[in-house]
Amino acid sequence: MKKRLALLDSGWLTMETPETPMHVGGLMLYKTPDNAPETFMQDMLAWMMNVREVARPFNKKLSGVLPMNLDAGWVEDHDIDMDYHIRHAALPRPGRIRELLALVSRLHAQRMDRAHPLWEAYLIEGIEGNRFGLFVKIHHSLVDGVAAMRLLQNRLALNGRDRLPPPWSAEWEELEALQAGEKRPRRRGPSLGESFKAMGNVALNLAKLAATPKESHVKSIYKAPSTVLNKRVRPARRFAAQSWSLSRLKDVAKQYDATLNDVVLAMCGGALREYLLGYATLPEHSLVANVPVSIRSNDQANEGGNAISAVQVTLGTHIKSAAKRLEAIQESMNDAKARLGAMNRVEIDTHTVLTSLPLLAGQVSGLDGRLPVLFNVVVSNVPGPREARYLNGAQLLANYPASLIWHGYAMNITVQSYCDNLDFGVIACRESAPKVQRMLDFLEAALADLEQSAMAKGTRHRKSA
Amino acid sequence: MKKRLALLDSGWLTMETPETPMHVGGLMLYKTPDNAPETFMQDMLAWMMNVREVARPFNKKLSGVLPMNLDAGWVEDHDIDMDYHIRHAALPRPGRIRELLALVSRLHAQRMDRAHPLWEAYLIEGIEGNRFGLFVKIHHSLVDGVAAMRLLQNRLALNGRDRLPPPWSAEWEELEALQAGEKRPRRRGPSLGESFKAMGNVALNLAKLAATPKESHVKSIYKAPSTVLNKRVRPARRFAAQSWSLSRLKDVAKQYDATLNDVVLAMCGGALREYLLGYATLPEHSLVANVPVSIRSNDQANEGGNAISAVQVTLGTHIKSAAKRLEAIQESMNDAKARLGAMNRVEIDTHTVLTSLPLLAGQVSGLDGRLPVLFNVVVSNVPGPREARYLNGAQLLANYPASLIWHGYAMNITVQSYCDNLDFGVIACRESAPKVQRMLDFLEAALADLEQSAMAKGTRHRKSA
Repeated sequence: MKKRLALLDSGWLTMETPETPMHVGGLMLYKTPDNAPETFMQDMLAWMMNVREVARPFNKKLSGVLPMNLDAGWVEDHDIDMDYHIRHAALPRPGRIRELLALVSRLHAQRMDRAHPLWEAYLIEGIEGNRFGLFVKIHHSLVDGVAAMRLLQNRLALNGRDRLPPPWSAEWEELEALQAGEKRPRRRGPSLGESFKAMGNVALNLAKLAATPKESHVKSIYKAPSTVLNKRVRPARRFAAQSWSLSRLKDVAKQYDATLNDVVLAMCGGALREYLLGYATLPEHSLVANVPVSIRSNDQANEGGNAISAVQVTLGTHIKSAAKRLEAIQESMNDAKARLGAMNRVEIDTHTVLTSLPLLAGQVSGLDGRLPVLFNVVVSNVPGPREARYLNGAQLLANYPASLIWHGYAMNITVQSYCDNLDFGVIACRESAPKVQRMLDFLEAALADLEQSAMAKGTRHRKSA
Repeated sequence: MKKRLALLDSGWLTMETPETPMHVGGLMLYKTPDNAPETFMQDMLAWMMNVREVARPFNKKLSGVLPMNLDAGWVEDHDIDMDYHIRHAALPRPGRIRELLALVSRLHAQRMDRAHPLWEAYLIEGIEGNRFGLFVKIHHSLVDGVAAMRLLQNRLALNGRDRLPPPWSAEWEELEALQAGEKRPRRRGPSLGESFKAMGNVALNLAKLAATPKESHVKSIYKAPSTVLNKRVRPARRFAAQSWSLSRLKDVAKQYDATLNDVVLAMCGGALREYLLGYATLPEHSLVANVPVSIRSNDQANEGGNAISAVQVTLGTHIKSAAKRLEAIQESMNDAKARLGAMNRVEIDTHTVLTSLPLLAGQVSGLDGRLPVLFNVVVSNVPGPREARYLNGAQLLANYPASLIWHGYAMNITVQSYCDNLDFGVIACRESAPKVQRMLDFLEAALADLEQSAMAKGTRHRKSA
């Protein structure tokens, strides 16, 4: 049975070009158990392949013959070639994180073949320190990227003894159906009337935004400066990834009465300032980040539901002082949240569509990277599990997100929490954003700057007390 | 300075689709020297990267912005990012040829980015038996595939002591200019009148071909049966490669009074018969191979020049007896050569264009794989060096060609001689031609069949003598 493509799914497929594959990736770093036999990697590979039936959405395959996917729909593939989807790879010596990131950069750049379900998993051996990797690519049309990676994560074991099916095994569907118990009520879609009314309110808000004085840190969505990050992209990618201790960031957040997300944005702002100073041109006005947020709207307060939208906030890249940069980010973020919080659910949805529309139009028309940008960089902060997870006996050490980029938006920073760490994944166009691996040093320097400023502030506080 | 694209170069670019990348590859297998230090692979990589200026054609980059490459031309890239072109890779354990072929299959499937000079080299470590690999991809528009691979081979050292520049170093241009000494005279292009006259002769020949009785092994170019090898292809590839001893093939050739190339074709015919019997359907009529040949035309006998064309010959796949299959191939090949040999240079060129035209048209129109095919499979036999070659101290063990395939022509077998071996490289679409790795067993079985038949024949000869 063929199921018609949802409009948004179809969008991800239509927007895809050789330069802008529309899949997201996740690089999971695992510890090889101490008592692992010689055949551990071979056994792991065999376990990953040994799946009788593949779970949704990993069994969804495109069907259709017309161009632009006009007649496309999803069909379930009951005869999946696991040898195609599960691939065994290795690092050249010395097998450092450097070699790992070089390999993942190349793997992430490759577009997937639409004749197969749109996912691939690479088991990577030869990482120094008795570790191995699992890099998974999932097309955004299959399921939204965050949801897909969460699915993989949720299907890991909570200890090293449990032997569960691979995350893409259909056995999980039965297991989860048993766990889920009662069904959640479906959300009612907005009526056409509600949608039009909401568009009016959103338009009013956008007009207010445009009227905001320039010197404010409250950023309009149409005032992002032009930078090297906002050019057309080429197919090659560079992936940089590193973990930071959550407690370091929480300490800084406490000192400044900021949220963890504010500190993440301040690290990104500080790092991007250094990056642009060193490898390109730092614009006079601050870079603007597009930040996906999970918010509760007015009319949902009692329902307990959450909505996902995005806000555009300053990164304070024009500010030299780390402390003042963080303050500017806090102000900008609070304002954006307040504005979104005042909207109802339908208004939020419309806002989300309106602020994304020029993006989609640009990508499809091929004009992206040649038009003024809405923002400079996506910075996404995704909560992850707080307790250790295990893949068939091997402990997950870190989980680095590798998101997608597109014309005009050549860098994406996605951050995910796991146990006591924040795992940063920076994906960028290898050409537009050169030497992006240096971002890791700059992120560390930005955090250290905030720590030093906080210490100095603390000292001042004590002096004045 | 921009140099306009030649029509044929442009063709290779226009014909390229995500399913049919138009590059050829070569997998070179090397022996790590016995006394190699721990850092041998790192040193090799550093040597490969350490190039001040890149030689033609490895520095040729496309320039142009219009679609279909309408305004495209070649420019020389004087600031090549070697880290982009030279890539370090490794095999997962146990590092058998099986793992090597799996990796090369994936690497060969990936289309190259036209913003860079269209070549990539992968240094592959971790091959069992103290070996390493070098897999090189070169776009067909850059230089014809055979010529490019020959260039790489000719720039290897003749012993393990010489330390020469990497094959893509511009230093080679000076070295070769010194070696070349006097220049060869340029061939005069045919006049328009000569071309038209030639077309008439060729048309007459084609008409004669079409009138050839069906039961003859002399194959018309329009009578290839439809097989699984002649469907549309997907992007994924499967590469299979193995070496056979030249003396084994020469012995067989001698027994049957055949050429080495006839024996290669008989191996392919026997293997394809088994392959189709096992994994698809064996057609009633024989498969037809397209075989590039180097021939001397009537009017060139005194000039000593050689022309390259292609002939279509039977593979005798409908014949069960190995000996009779070889006889059929000999008859078909001799006839095709005689026909080509009777043509003059201009006629040959026109014949080559005429027999390739429907191919190009099909690929461009997107109808390929949906039209009757001209032949079933390309079998190409390329002479290689007879003496051992060395890459910066490491001995070349084998050199497997990985050619290109396209819609309707899902398999290519290219064979290259090196020292005492014939190195077979079979590249095929992973989907249309499943389990192509089995071709290696079938090629061996076909050769063994010929050897047994020859032995039996020898016995009979002795008996009758």
